[in-house]
Amino acid sequence: MTNPIVGIVMGSDSDLPVMEQAAHQLESFDIPFEIRIISAHRAPREAFDFATSALGRGLKVVIAGAGGAAHLPGVIAGLTILPVIGVPIESSSLNGVDSLYSIVQMPSGVPVATVAVNAAKNAAILAAEILATSDNDLRQRLLDFKEKLELDVKGKDAKLQRLGWKDYK
Amino acid sequence: MTNPIVGIVMGSDSDLPVMEQAAHQLESFDIPFEIRIISAHRAPREAFDFATSALGRGLKVVIAGAGGAAHLPGVIAGLTILPVIGVPIESSSLNGVDSLYSIVQMPSGVPVATVAVNAAKNAAILAAEILATSDNDLRQRLLDFKEKLELDVKGKDAKLQRLGWKDYK
Amino acid sequence: MTNPIVGIVMGSDSDLPVMEQAAHQLESFDIPFEIRIISAHRAPREAFDFATSALGRGLKVVIAGAGGAAHLPGVIAGLTILPVIGVPIESSSLNGVDSLYSIVQMPSGVPVATVAVNAAKNAAILAAEILATSDNDLRQRLLDFKEKLELDVKGKDAKLQRLGWKDYK
Amino acid sequence: MTNPIVGIVMGSDSDLPVMEQAAHQLESFDIPFEIRIISAHRAPREAFDFATSALGRGLKVVIAGAGGAAHLPGVIAGLTILPVIGVPIESSSLNGVDSLYSIVQMPSGVPVATVAVNAAKNAAILAAEILATSDNDLRQRLLDFKEKLELDVKGKDAKLQRLGWKDYK
Amino acid sequence: MTNPIVGIVMGSDSDLPVMEQAAHQLESFDIPFEIRIISAHRAPREAFDFATSALGRGLKVVIAGAGGAAHLPGVIAGLTILPVIGVPIESSSLNGVDSLYSIVQMPSGVPVATVAVNAAKNAAILAAEILATSDNDLRQRLLDFKEKLELDVKGKDAKLQRLGWKDYK
Amino acid sequence: MTNPIVGIVMGSDSDLPVMEQAAHQLESFDIPFEIRIISAHRAPREAFDFATSALGRGLKVVIAGAGGAAHLPGVIAGLTILPVIGVPIESSSLNGVDSLYSIVQMPSGVPVATVAVNAAKNAAILAAEILATSDNDLRQRLLDFKEKLELDVKGKDAKLQRLGWKDYK
Amino acid sequence: MTNPIVGIVMGSDSDLPVMEQAAHQLESFDIPFEIRIISAHRAPREAFDFATSALGRGLKVVIAGAGGAAHLPGVIAGLTILPVIGVPIESSSLNGVDSLYSIVQMPSGVPVATVAVNAAKNAAILAAEILATSDNDLRQRLLDFKEKLELDVKGKDAKLQRLGWKDYK
Amino acid sequence: MTNPIVGIVMGSDSDLPVMEQAAHQLESFDIPFEIRIISAHRAPREAFDFATSALGRGLKVVIAGAGGAAHLPGVIAGLTILPVIGVPIESSSLNGVDSLYSIVQMPSGVPVATVAVNAAKNAAILAAEILATSDNDLRQRLLDFKEKLELDVKGKDAKLQRLGWKDYK
Repeated sequence: MTNPIVGIVMGSDSDLPVMEQAAHQLESFDIPFEIRIISAHRAPREAFDFATSALGRGLKVVIAGAGGAAHLPGVIAGLTILPVIGVPIESSSLNGVDSLYSIVQMPSGVPVATVAVNAAKNAAILAAEILATSDNDLRQRLLDFKEKLELDVKGKDAKLQRLGWKDYK
Repeated sequence: MTNPIVGIVMGSDSDLPVMEQAAHQLESFDIPFEIRIISAHRAPREAFDFATSALGRGLKVVIAGAGGAAHLPGVIAGLTILPVIGVPIESSSLNGVDSLYSIVQMPSGVPVATVAVNAAKNAAILAAEILATSDNDLRQRLLDFKEKLELDVKGKDAKLQRLGWKDYK
Repeated sequence: MTNPIVGIVMGSDSDLPVMEQAAHQLESFDIPFEIRIISAHRAPREAFDFATSALGRGLKVVIAGAGGAAHLPGVIAGLTILPVIGVPIESSSLNGVDSLYSIVQMPSGVPVATVAVNAAKNAAILAAEILATSDNDLRQRLLDFKEKLELDVKGKDAKLQRLGWKDYK
Repeated sequence: MTNPIVGIVMGSDSDLPVMEQAAHQLESFDIPFEIRIISAHRAPREAFDFATSALGRGLKVVIAGAGGAAHLPGVIAGLTILPVIGVPIESSSLNGVDSLYSIVQMPSGVPVATVAVNAAKNAAILAAEILATSDNDLRQRLLDFKEKLELDVKGKDAKLQRLGWKDYK
Repeated sequence: MTNPIVGIVMGSDSDLPVMEQAAHQLESFDIPFEIRIISAHRAPREAFDFATSALGRGLKVVIAGAGGAAHLPGVIAGLTILPVIGVPIESSSLNGVDSLYSIVQMPSGVPVATVAVNAAKNAAILAAEILATSDNDLRQRLLDFKEKLELDVKGKDAKLQRLGWKDYK
Repeated sequence: MTNPIVGIVMGSDSDLPVMEQAAHQLESFDIPFEIRIISAHRAPREAFDFATSALGRGLKVVIAGAGGAAHLPGVIAGLTILPVIGVPIESSSLNGVDSLYSIVQMPSGVPVATVAVNAAKNAAILAAEILATSDNDLRQRLLDFKEKLELDVKGKDAKLQRLGWKDYK
Repeated sequence: MTNPIVGIVMGSDSDLPVMEQAAHQLESFDIPFEIRIISAHRAPREAFDFATSALGRGLKVVIAGAGGAAHLPGVIAGLTILPVIGVPIESSSLNGVDSLYSIVQMPSGVPVATVAVNAAKNAAILAAEILATSDNDLRQRLLDFKEKLELDVKGKDAKLQRLGWKDYK
Repeated sequence: MTNPIVGIVMGSDSDLPVMEQAAHQLESFDIPFEIRIISAHRAPREAFDFATSALGRGLKVVIAGAGGAAHLPGVIAGLTILPVIGVPIESSSLNGVDSLYSIVQMPSGVPVATVAVNAAKNAAILAAEILATSDNDLRQRLLDFKEKLELDVKGKDAKLQRLGWKDYK
């Protein structure tokens, strides 16, 4: 069995419906990953252990999702030199703005690579882009993926021209 | 020498001009305190040690100031059962809204007692109110402080009536 | 019967579904409390009486929830030296931002310990942390509570490892 | 000497540079007024006394300016049936948004007539409009004032046409 | 039949479910009013005629509700010296913040008395307070109304004490 | 068959329910148009080709709708001197504020004519106004349209007067 | 002398430093224009006359700048079928967000073509793009302008490559 | 001479004072880079060429800074599978919120790794972390850098303990 090279972590199992989109996307790229529920606030020792051991265990990228005062990505970034991708999750009454600011506004010296609110799928694509900087096979899969994105849009446009805007569904 | 019962911590020495207002206020209440520069992101091990040892070393309240993705109060709150007072510091281009959201929107189970942006003095008063729940002498000092607040306002109003609004300065 | 040491107050019975989470949590900590509907705007005399009598009646902490132009926590804080915990309630069209700003941005001299929007449960935990600064039994209950928080997260993570992310529910 | 019929109140003498614009405007309308420094948070008893006695002392309108968690207008409105005009003052790091929300988002039953951030002059004009509903002389002064507003704009436009936009100053 | 002394206007019949709360409240105060659909943008001549004729037709207060780029209250205020009360209506995707800013941030010289988002009932109460500055009967009705507000809160509090928070409904 | 003179483009078929309102409105003005699905991010070459060929193919106005980091209007505006109308679509958790800022805040030299969030119908009306600057027939249709807007409002007001506010539906 | 075909209007002479950028830009395109100070709130009759006469006097586009509750562009758009370009001016404590929302969030039927905060120059370029839909000479000037924009950027990039980033100034 | 493996791009030379911090940081890590002024709006062909050639020319990471409707990072991300790091630059009246939203809220399929407003230095550190996933020497330099961050904080704390908070400077 292949060792995971990406770690997906989230602060609560209520974040799983969002974060499993990252898992699906990594799977489709054939990138081995682990997925964990780890809370920076409720189980800080596990977060500490996860982050400090990540490099040694062979992880190359961490994807961390969190909502509200979303500290998990930043706490991990403080404890490892691996690139950490943060996914702000819309879990409170403030529309995810709190999650976004808590993740992206990191202090000098400790970046978190932040994606859009709830954009776990994009986090996985970014992880793949990072890994592809040294993996030619993955690079090709990404080029294929990007071509497919373009073909999908062109297909929808062709369908719209064919059916007309009144009959498109 | 008296052991500190309040810990004032901040993420950077650039926060000191704000946070020293807490120190002044505690001093005026005769509350012994320690003051530390501890970063949740740049020196996470020290933050971990500070937070996990705080109760055992005799601290009763922690005041933590931070700006931007202001994780320090929340990280400490995750590691201790002491009440943690968070001071959002206006240190970025977002007017302190990022700091406020990052501190106040804590998840269920781990509160941070948040005060206004840059309100380090109020953090110290809140710490005194907390300590006064079991300290009658301090309670009296707080009652005196509150009376003085009222007298100050009444004094300014009396001055305004005396000088008139055109000559008040 | 035990005298209440925490007062839970709210401006309207429509706030009860949020604020009863504070009651449940205090109950689980065995902390005696009273719960009141008191409006700073519609019944200001009762708010005045509640706040000025709170200390003398033996209360040690006040938890006040309010929405919109949420003045109740601040009005009480102006009339007592007890620590006042404010719960911003999301009751208007502005997502609770108005409630949050109205509660947290208190002027110098009169702090309100603000928790997250709708976070009445956290307000109760904070009240317990405050009381535990002089109550060793309660301190132990809080340590147990914090341990349970950690165990819950670890239990969910273990379940996720066991079931896998595709079958977790 | 004429009894005041408008009360101008503010929470702190630091608000005077804004609030004195209301005084100037009332003076230019020949409306007798009183001006007070009264804090809802630091001197709540005086605020209580001011508000409950206002109607009996002959006041017809109250103008209240406050910043941050700006409770003064709402607290007064809870204690009187006089129309209360609120002036949000930009006194904190949040650009006056906190003051605006704290003043305007009053609960059902207790309105505050809110004007723009720092718009003390407009508060005085609004007070005059309210008083003019039963004062024909004041009505005429308001009609003259409005005509002058229009003439000022037309005068500036005429000057712009005369000098041209490159030479206008 | 009594001539109307308050004019309620709104930009669209889709605003009626909010604005009819003002009508109900005025009716309960026995204040005669007219209610109109008038758009500053789609029927500007009618808005112009309404505003310029309001004073002459005997109106004393105008209540204007509008959403989005909510110009109706301000346009009317530019054309009359009657007090204009603005009700920001939450009718767009921006939660009513656009309506609030468009109504409250009026330029110097032309105030609009702004109430909370969707607070048409409070607009009517404010209109009553304005009219009561010269109407002793109405003043008494307002005092009764305020007393009833207080009794309602006290009644709910009494019910809460009687039933307990677990059984309150 | 008439050549299109307006191009409606959108980044995804999920934007069609909003953007088809522009199509309906252009149709009612008898303005020939084309409608395309073109993504600035997923099919950038097609966006490039569309924008650089638009002028030569006879288009006179482009209407572009997009949500989130809504780049499509701006990217097209960078590649053509045709007027580009941007429609911010509310497609993310941030209420359309992200779409609005991404479209309206264009740098010096490259304007996008931005309309309200989701206001595709208004985009079509604006396109008609632009085309009418050199088309007298269309000008007349716009004058008729504007008159109808006014009649609609007056009709609703008349109905309100007839039925009364309690029976209006 | 050429008749103006663009009207630049602003609510106050304090807006002139921003709006004169539109004048400069129109001048550089050789587009004849008039420039007026017209207030929707303080001189509404002039605004009414300006807007209703604009089409008849030969104007083809209106550029209107305003700040705060920025009604001028929308009021004009309600009274003419000419395309109206709105420039939100940052003139209040709210960073121009109030101006932006007040201008862009127009109701269905009455669009305003909104540009970025303070972007009067872009408003003029947009006016030129609109006029160029029926003016081949102006079209060529716009193509030249766009080419120059590109050359400027390329020139700066070339300079950066030549001097290096440490010596660029 | 070494070929660049990181490309730093910005939309305008006015962004250079922010973006040169990325250059300094990459230099200190001995990472070869190129630095370009490329505008997605004013020189879109160069942006297109830069992005489509980046992978082939040996770049491994792109750092793109932009302000306002900040399209540059997203436009590049649409044209390459290299990881693109976006730096929101505070260049407009909206405090950088517009830049942040325009960069981070990318649609599904095309991520941009967003850092804090103006955080060009952190963008360079993130680039280094990405490159270090396949470069052991660089990994060591990052570990050293992280250790130095920690030592700096500890040094400042030690100085604070030595000098005391009243004499710290």
